[in-house]
Amino acid sequence: MLKVLILGSSSATPAFKRFPSAQIVSHNERFYLLDCGEGAQLQLLKYKIRLHRLDAIFISHLHGDHFFGLPGLLSTLNMQERTAPLTVYGPEGLREIIELQFKLSESTIRYPLDFRVLTPQDFGTVIFESRTLEVISIPLKHRIFCSGFLLREKPKKRKFMLSEAIRYEVPKEYFTLLKLGNSVTLPDERIIVPEMVLGKEDPSESYAYCSDTQYSEELKQYIYQVDLLYHEATFMEAHLERAKATAHSTGKQAATIASLSEVRKLIIGHFSARYPDLEPLLVEARSVFANTDLAIEGCVFETNGNS
Amino acid sequence: MLKVLILGSSSATPAFKRFPSAQIVSHNERFYLLDCGEGAQLQLLKYKIRLHRLDAIFISHLHGDHFFGLPGLLSTLNMQERTAPLTVYGPEGLREIIELQFKLSESTIRYPLDFRVLTPQDFGTVIFESRTLEVISIPLKHRIFCSGFLLREKPKKRKFMLSEAIRYEVPKEYFTLLKLGNSVTLPDERIIVPEMVLGKEDPSESYAYCSDTQYSEELKQYIYQVDLLYHEATFMEAHLERAKATAHSTGKQAATIASLSEVRKLIIGHFSARYPDLEPLLVEARSVFANTDLAIEGCVFETNGNS
Repeated sequence: MLKVLILGSSSATPAFKRFPSAQIVSHNERFYLLDCGEGAQLQLLKYKIRLHRLDAIFISHLHGDHFFGLPGLLSTLNMQERTAPLTVYGPEGLREIIELQFKLSESTIRYPLDFRVLTPQDFGTVIFESRTLEVISIPLKHRIFCSGFLLREKPKKRKFMLSEAIRYEVPKEYFTLLKLGNSVTLPDERIIVPEMVLGKEDPSESYAYCSDTQYSEELKQYIYQVDLLYHEATFMEAHLERAKATAHSTGKQAATIASLSEVRKLIIGHFSARYPDLEPLLVEARSVFANTDLAIEGCVFETNGNS
Repeated sequence: MLKVLILGSSSATPAFKRFPSAQIVSHNERFYLLDCGEGAQLQLLKYKIRLHRLDAIFISHLHGDHFFGLPGLLSTLNMQERTAPLTVYGPEGLREIIELQFKLSESTIRYPLDFRVLTPQDFGTVIFESRTLEVISIPLKHRIFCSGFLLREKPKKRKFMLSEAIRYEVPKEYFTLLKLGNSVTLPDERIIVPEMVLGKEDPSESYAYCSDTQYSEELKQYIYQVDLLYHEATFMEAHLERAKATAHSTGKQAATIASLSEVRKLIIGHFSARYPDLEPLLVEARSVFANTDLAIEGCVFETNGNS
C-alpha cells in the first residue's frame, strides 16, 4: 500500500495558505518526495516526517513552484548530518543549480548526493527500483520538459500456508518449489498445485503523479487502472482558454482522463491563485468522475482507497 | 518612523514553526525586504504585505537561510505582472543564481530587475537612497562575506509656523529664507531667527540589521545610538564555543553590543533549532541589556519604541 501526504497544492503563485507542489509518498517505511516547491521542508517539519527515511526525490520539471524548496531541504539534510546516500531524479540543470548555490555559500554536501538526469528517453521506463517498488517516468505535455511518475508495487510473494501443506501430507523437500509458485508431483503420484498451499494473491497497488500537463489522452496508456491518480487541475472550465494557453488542465479534464483510464480514485491539485474557494472546481470534476478529492495540505490518501 | 515586521527568526535549520531570516521594514508607505529565507513570500502573503509597494531587497550574505526564498518571490512578482523596477542589493553571485533558475525554467523576468553587487568597499557607505531614507552597509564578521544594513531617516524639514510669522509681523517675502533655516534681518532692523518660526526638530530614527555575525565591538561605530538594533543571537551562553566555531553570537553577546552601542532597543533572532523554548535565551540577554525582545514571526517593532 502506498500512502500519499499532500504538502502543497498551489500552482505558480502561492495563495490562501496553499504551498507550492510537493508530496510525500510512503511505502514500506520509506519516504519518497515528489516535487519540492518552496517551503516543502517547513511542511515536512509540520507533518513530522522523519527526514532520515527519505530515500529519493523526484522533480517533475524546472518551473520554480516544483523545485524552489530543494536547495533548502538538501541543506537541512546536511545540517542534520545525514550520511545515507540520496538520489534526486529530475531534468537536466538541477545539479547545476544546486551546486552553484552550495559553491557560493562555501558549503559542502557531506552525504553522497547523486543526480539522475531524466530525458524523453526515460519516458515509459523504470527509473527507480527498490526491493518492493518501482518508479516509471510518465511523459507529460507542458511548456517545458516534464515527467510524471508512476509508483508501482512489485508483484508480492504469496504466503505459504504450512497447515495446508501438512494437511495434504506434502514432504518438506517440496516446500521450496511450491513457495516459488511451481506445481509438484509427489512420490505417490498426487499433483500439488500452488493454489493448494499458497495464500491468495495480494494485488500490487499503484499511484500516478501527473504534476503539470495539458489535457492529453495519451496519458491513459501509462496510468491505466492505477489505484490512485493525482492529476493537476489548475483551472475551472470558465478558464479553459487560459488552461490551453498555459499547457495546464481544468478539473473536468483531469476527471475525464481519470475516467478514460479507469482509475480507482482521483486527486486534483495545483490550484490557480484565482480561486479562494475550491468547492466549485471539485463539483465540476465530480460531475465527470465521482471519486475525486481535492489535494489539500495535510491530507493523506492511500492506494487501498482510504483517505 | 521605521517599522520592522519579523517574517523569519530561525537559523540555518527551520524548527518549531520558525521560518528562516527575513524582515520587512516599512517607511513612508514603502517596503524594504531584509534577507529572504525560504518561505518569505508565504509569510508576506500571511501578513498581507502588498508586494507592489516593495521598493528594494537587501540580502546580507549567501548562506541559504538568507536567500533561498528569493527566486520564488521574484517569480511571484513576475506573475503579478509587476512593472515597477526592483533592485536587489547583495553579494556577488546572486544574479547568477537567479538568472540560471529563470533560464532553466525558460521564464523571463518582465519587470526591470537590477542587481547591485555589495563588496567590502561598500562597508560604511550609503548604498541606497530615497527622498527620506538612506541605507548604509555594515561590515559583519561571518564565515563568508556578510553585510548588515543601517536604515536611517534623512534629516526632516522643520514645520513652518505661519501663526508665529504673523505674530512677529514678518513680511511674506522672507518666508522662503526662513523655511530653509536662515536668519533674516527685517527692514525695521529686527532679526528673526529660524527658532522663532520653525517647529521643533523631529529626530531622524534609525534601524540596524545585523544578520549573522560573531561578537565584534567594531560594530559600535556603525550602530551607535540607533533607535532599534536587530542582532543575531543564535546560541545561549552554554554553547559559546559553538558560537565561536560557527562565527555566530550568543544572546548575551548581542546584548553587550547593544549596551556598548547605547541603542534604545534590541531585538534578537536567528535562533538555533536546538532551542524549542526561547525564554531562557531572552533572560540571558536581558541580564545585560534590559530593553531586549525576541524576534518572533509576526511581531512588529517601531523605531519610536513601540512594539
